[in-house]
Amino acid sequence: MWFYEKLYPDLEVATSGKLLYKKKTKFQELKIFDTPRLGKVLTLDNITQTTQLDEFIYHEMLVHPVLLSHPNPKNILIIGAGDGGILREVLKHNIKKACLVEIDDEVIKSCSRYMPTLNRGAFKDKRAKIIVTDGAKFITSTKEKFDVAIIDSPDPISVATVLFTKKFYKDVFRVLNNNGLMCRQTGSTMYQPNELGQNYNLAKKIFKSVSIQLAAIPTYVGGFFSFIICSKKINIKNISFKKINYRYNIINLKTRYYNPELHFASRCLPNYIRRNIR
Amino acid sequence: MWFYEKLYPDLEVATSGKLLYKKKTKFQELKIFDTPRLGKVLTLDNITQTTQLDEFIYHEMLVHPVLLSHPNPKNILIIGAGDGGILREVLKHNIKKACLVEIDDEVIKSCSRYMPTLNRGAFKDKRAKIIVTDGAKFITSTKEKFDVAIIDSPDPISVATVLFTKKFYKDVFRVLNNNGLMCRQTGSTMYQPNELGQNYNLAKKIFKSVSIQLAAIPTYVGGFFSFIICSKKINIKNISFKKINYRYNIINLKTRYYNPELHFASRCLPNYIRRNIR
Repeated sequence: MWFYEKLYPDLEVATSGKLLYKKKTKFQELKIFDTPRLGKVLTLDNITQTTQLDEFIYHEMLVHPVLLSHPNPKNILIIGAGDGGILREVLKHNIKKACLVEIDDEVIKSCSRYMPTLNRGAFKDKRAKIIVTDGAKFITSTKEKFDVAIIDSPDPISVATVLFTKKFYKDVFRVLNNNGLMCRQTGSTMYQPNELGQNYNLAKKIFKSVSIQLAAIPTYVGGFFSFIICSKKINIKNISFKKINYRYNIINLKTRYYNPELHFASRCLPNYIRRNIR
Repeated sequence: MWFYEKLYPDLEVATSGKLLYKKKTKFQELKIFDTPRLGKVLTLDNITQTTQLDEFIYHEMLVHPVLLSHPNPKNILIIGAGDGGILREVLKHNIKKACLVEIDDEVIKSCSRYMPTLNRGAFKDKRAKIIVTDGAKFITSTKEKFDVAIIDSPDPISVATVLFTKKFYKDVFRVLNNNGLMCRQTGSTMYQPNELGQNYNLAKKIFKSVSIQLAAIPTYVGGFFSFIICSKKINIKNISFKKINYRYNIINLKTRYYNPELHFASRCLPNYIRRNIR
């Protein structure tokens, strides 16, 4: 059986595999496949969200650069990320609490069952608090303050569009402590060429500084995939290699993609991206 | 009409487009498509070779890091590259002669006609010498010596397998001057995970030093795409940013992907690649 990804009208990525699970949830159509190359694959509304083969790249790059850039991250907010991969990486740090807000309970349940290597026990960790509700609504009402917010959203279509508005950036800013940092994905730099620039410009209006980092992730086709880190006060561009390397070693971080050299290398932008964000 | 790439048995990338040209040459089946996203696309035996959208990434990264690492590159050998993209980039440097050896005349003719932005007049440059013959045979018989050899081969299947043997590395070594450097592509680091390691190890047996560089190229799916630079004598890892930046500026190099910061950033390897080449 072949699965065809329907993200772009003129471009398809198809993988052969077996359908393990299919469910029409309150919010989306969820499928889990087993494939020879990518391992287990989660799709929502026929768009690939994560695969066992390369989920580590996305999850490590969304978590470690931002957490190691913060001097003392204790209280972490995670929006989305029901597959558990972000939480797994966050819990490698010396944090006190990680609050995961996922809109769709079925993502948590089905990934825990069919893709257990994603959360790898993270949902049972005492520091983890799982809240099933709309993340955009949660941050308008919570009284809590966070050191780092990690936004693990799908593409800015359907259920996730609300996570890409100016209001959402303002709300995240409000729930962060003074040293607070936020990290999110901003799409493929060649196949979704406006997403990075739009989010970069929006975030710059609200945060003190915004920095871009890139990673090459097979599942998200279209060249370099991008992330932004937004800072309320800390100038994260000034943090030295020595400091990042020290923090990386002191918690004895085990990673399969990220390393302190790559922390800085991933911030070097090709000319076509430099021009796009000017 | 949809075009399906047949590089992997379990994974397909399909693009909608119009077939502009199709020819069974002496060596392979050549097709040129016009597509809305990728522009013109060249395929050989149903495997995508180059697209107008992102050819600049591959061509710049195969040419500029190796040419700027050489103190005085004058005589350049190019194997393959009948589409003209490599030659176009090589001619931006202050060289005396570029000798392009392409096995299949039809690639040169059809790309010149349907994808003229690839060679952009390069074939008519006085410094260019075009030789239509088998590159592997050419280097066993030529009396000429070169400063830099650029191997623009397809994947190591069918007609190109001979360009990935120990004998081929030895032959390239022999036709290089003492300061000589060679650069080649070594495939996708996730979907062709052995190619980089195999070539790296082969090259290390023959050359003094071998360095790896990475780029994210949409057309070549599977995460980071890899290249190796092999050196006869120069320790290219010791060349400073200042020197590369000086050489880049003195020839006023215009690029869309490459820049001197990225020259160094592209040599930082994710952990999964570090482990693979140990």
